Amino acid sequence: MAVIYETACTLNGFLATEDDSLDWLFAIPGEQPDLKPFMEAATAIVMGSTTYEWVLRTEDLLAHPEKWPEYLGRQPLFVFSSRDLPVPEGADVRVVDGDVGRHLPEIRAAAGDGDVWLMGGGGLAARFLDAGALDRICLTVAPVTLVTGKPLFAGDARWDRLRLCSAEKVGEWARLVYDVRPTSA
Amino acid sequence: MAVIYETACTLNGFLATEDDSLDWLFAIPGEQPDLKPFMEAATAIVMGSTTYEWVLRTEDLLAHPEKWPEYLGRQPLFVFSSRDLPVPEGADVRVVDGDVGRHLPEIRAAAGDGDVWLMGGGGLAARFLDAGALDRICLTVAPVTLVTGKPLFAGDARWDRLRLCSAEKVGEWARLVYDVRPTSA
Repeated sequence: MAVIYETACTLNGFLATEDDSLDWLFAIPGEQPDLKPFMEAATAIVMGSTTYEWVLRTEDLLAHPEKWPEYLGRQPLFVFSSRDLPVPEGADVRVVDGDVGRHLPEIRAAAGDGDVWLMGGGGLAARFLDAGALDRICLTVAPVTLVTGKPLFAGDARWDRLRLCSAEKVGEWARLVYDVRPTSA
Repeated sequence: MAVIYETACTLNGFLATEDDSLDWLFAIPGEQPDLKPFMEAATAIVMGSTTYEWVLRTEDLLAHPEKWPEYLGRQPLFVFSSRDLPVPEGADVRVVDGDVGRHLPEIRAAAGDGDVWLMGGGGLAARFLDAGALDRICLTVAPVTLVTGKPLFAGDARWDRLRLCSAEKVGEWARLVYDVRPTSA
């Protein structure tokens, strides 16, 4: 069981524009690298409130909760937020407040033998790193730069925490996979 | 002859810390990818004033101008700045003000048949992109993240401007090379 931060990003470190648009991403022609095997192995999903609200908005999922399973799957979804957030009818969405470490046992239990997909954003990913709860960072780097935007990763990890496993060209995309090492106590 | 933005960066899009430290970079053990062939093919160098002042400081080159050739080579160096900047005795440093397009002919003439190495920072690289004067972006991506810092690239380039040529793992580093396409006027 691993907690994996898997996301697309620009080559200069952004997840989205300042107003959370992904138009720059969806405009890229051709196929993205195939994440289906990864997504099928992920038996729980974790995200922050900005990502969650983007997901709800994009497919109008509050009005059309029947689209939820095909859009995001049937895994339990944990949303880190200090606010009350709406949940599409029938979806297994658990809004959790507080620190990462406190909710980790429940997240791991929900994932069982599968992996946890940390979808973003960059602030939450950094909090998982700081809690020693991040195992891998997998980036699908788009051939795009933005002047500014939402940060890919808002954390401080030096060379002794990150190990590059692979770097590959997949069509127009660069795939970078890093293992995260535990803190040296 | 090509203008090449060749730099090291963090995997989340920073060139340096906010106070221009590269300690996170120099702390990485083992060899960086070998840039010697690239540096020998670069017959002119371009940088912004922050990069230039960092270079001067790092090796105390104003006090020890005899170290200049071994440190940065014998190529003419163009520094984009609106300020007067000191120059080590005997070094061919040309401080140029104004827009990129206006100085491009002189830079190209100085480079002759060789390439122009644009060392940084990310603001100047973006100005070269906007001027249609950037041909390639070559990144040596360190297994490091910083919370914040100096941006790798402060420009807006969508998929129709950038083409990924190669993505490779070189030791602990990811090497990403992008060709820049002309604007579709």
